Amino acid sequence: MGMMLFHPISLLHWGCLISQAEVLSFIERCMTAVGTKAHHAKSLAQVLVEGDRRGHYSHGLNRMDMYVKDIESGICSKEGEPVVEKETAATALVDGRNLLGPVVGNYCMDLALKKAKDAGIGWVVAHGSNHYGIAGYYAMQALKENMIGMSFTNTSPLVVPTRGKECTLGTNPISVAAPANDGDSFVLDMATSAVALGKVELHDRRGDPIPVGWGCDAEGNLTPDPKKVLQGGGLVPIGGSEATGGYKGYGLGMMVEVFCGILSGAQYSKHVRTWKVTDRAANLGQCFVAINPESFASGFTDRMSDLLSIQRSLDPAIPGSPVLAAGDPERAHLEEIKELGGIPYHLNVVNFMNECGKRVGVSQLLPCDKLISN
Amino acid sequence: MGMMLFHPISLLHWGCLISQAEVLSFIERCMTAVGTKAHHAKSLAQVLVEGDRRGHYSHGLNRMDMYVKDIESGICSKEGEPVVEKETAATALVDGRNLLGPVVGNYCMDLALKKAKDAGIGWVVAHGSNHYGIAGYYAMQALKENMIGMSFTNTSPLVVPTRGKECTLGTNPISVAAPANDGDSFVLDMATSAVALGKVELHDRRGDPIPVGWGCDAEGNLTPDPKKVLQGGGLVPIGGSEATGGYKGYGLGMMVEVFCGILSGAQYSKHVRTWKVTDRAANLGQCFVAINPESFASGFTDRMSDLLSIQRSLDPAIPGSPVLAAGDPERAHLEEIKELGGIPYHLNVVNFMNECGKRVGVSQLLPCDKLISN
Repeated sequence: MGMMLFHPISLLHWGCLISQAEVLSFIERCMTAVGTKAHHAKSLAQVLVEGDRRGHYSHGLNRMDMYVKDIESGICSKEGEPVVEKETAATALVDGRNLLGPVVGNYCMDLALKKAKDAGIGWVVAHGSNHYGIAGYYAMQALKENMIGMSFTNTSPLVVPTRGKECTLGTNPISVAAPANDGDSFVLDMATSAVALGKVELHDRRGDPIPVGWGCDAEGNLTPDPKKVLQGGGLVPIGGSEATGGYKGYGLGMMVEVFCGILSGAQYSKHVRTWKVTDRAANLGQCFVAINPESFASGFTDRMSDLLSIQRSLDPAIPGSPVLAAGDPERAHLEEIKELGGIPYHLNVVNFMNECGKRVGVSQLLPCDKLISN
Repeated sequence: MGMMLFHPISLLHWGCLISQAEVLSFIERCMTAVGTKAHHAKSLAQVLVEGDRRGHYSHGLNRMDMYVKDIESGICSKEGEPVVEKETAATALVDGRNLLGPVVGNYCMDLALKKAKDAGIGWVVAHGSNHYGIAGYYAMQALKENMIGMSFTNTSPLVVPTRGKECTLGTNPISVAAPANDGDSFVLDMATSAVALGKVELHDRRGDPIPVGWGCDAEGNLTPDPKKVLQGGGLVPIGGSEATGGYKGYGLGMMVEVFCGILSGAQYSKHVRTWKVTDRAANLGQCFVAINPESFASGFTDRMSDLLSIQRSLDPAIPGSPVLAAGDPERAHLEEIKELGGIPYHLNVVNFMNECGKRVGVSQLLPCDKLISN
């Protein structure tokens, strides 16, 4: 059967349907095979699968081999648990002890939620962390408690500040989740760069030009050539050029760095190790926030539902292209997956991951009996 | 003498130099003449003068007549003080009681700072507020206490969500200030629209086209024609079109609305009164945050100084156009004003405000003896 690419975040043409439980189990099999503790492997598997389920395939199974290698090489730690170094009723500083990003992230977000129950807010920052998957995963944990959640992380330098020509900031994402009525929600999960690196890489592989405003060449000039962005250039902040407000995106990237690397005492800015070069521990900084609406005006979720409804019910500029709220494209992807009865993956990804599984000695990914083609 | 426009936020060609003390006093004279309490008038005067001093003339003396009219008409209240409705060790919900925005803003920011001293963070939201001038003013109060400050406000609807053609969000600014060593700092103060309305108005008055990516026409299409933006169209979120990431700016505008109107129970989104139509109380929502770096990793200001230095010392893409950090353009404007020995204003603004002063029966703005021409 043919599949429509109904959403811009769905970058892959898929060919193989795999049940969510099987992807979870496969990632756990691979991670425990290299010595990861069972509950750490489970934390990672859950974040990666949620990335895929939400259509953010660049932050899902596709990246599992990176985590496997980090544990195998010992550059990422598998022993111990994160620890609180300092705390108040509403804040905490956590040492992630170089454990897997999702282990640190879950620990910190749980702590933020606990603090927000009594203090109205919990603001927790961690140093000694690693790649934690989609930022939205942690923010969304707050929805289960009817709270607002936020999550931020710094990353390896990939973004060139306005007026510069060198990458000194990460894609530094911002995620904010807020609950509305009947399970509805607002879920913002965005890099502070104009686009993710994966989008530029995809255009490059296809031989397509990129829109001007995504990235710059080694001289700091905006370019439509993805190769120039990937070779010596960099991503640009949201807003693109200085004239169209790129300095705002640059400022937001800096704000995330203040919350993450600077507040926590982790690596920051150009001190973070180069992307894909794992010569030393990442020591990323991350920030997790929970805000309890019960400490503020009553009726929060009613107003949230109205706020979402105001936008969604707008007359669209292009008929058939409805006005969405943050999180709606991901919700559509989740529904698609429910209908399909599994998560669709590109065969190349499945084959690549099975090679990885074979190498560490675990059983292969078991596809659903439904096969889909593109 | 001639003056160079050294900075893009300096939109006015000025002609009249007035001392800071005299502008402060004039605003206080006008506001108390219409019945504002002395300390409320002073709060307003300080915020407006700081707007001018930082080069954000659209949020300074230029807007004084609006506040005078709001007090005269009774649409904004002059009696009483803001009150705390609900609080925890780290949070508060404040009723601004329809007082002047800066009165509410100062009250809330002071409270946030007090809470952050013990609890590590203070997160205070207000309903029943009014226009509060530059968002950065409140965030920067935290710098005096060596803390991180944040401030957000919703505004009248002026921004069209991605894919829409109707204004349902305000310019919803984000301000974040963080202290570095020796009085240096990071001060982000930005609307979540691509540009401020004032920039579009200025291009319109000059008969100049605007860059594509600032605003859209009544059909939701990006346009270079400022008239179409001002008449039935609207500003667009940071990022511009959907292809260049405008949905991220839209998401950030919504985030600010969640922190302001939704959390506080104020008006929100399209329910906020139309810009410049003062048929009813504004009932704006605002949010003020203080974060105490002492509750996190030690050495915060050292790392901040390094973070700023990394960016500022970058080799610029265009020689002579240095890479800046948020707050640097404003700092340059402050230094220019110090050298001049007063704040430079366009004669039209001074004449207009003097008409306003005459009407309410106070003495005129007294220019410095230096006269400058453009």
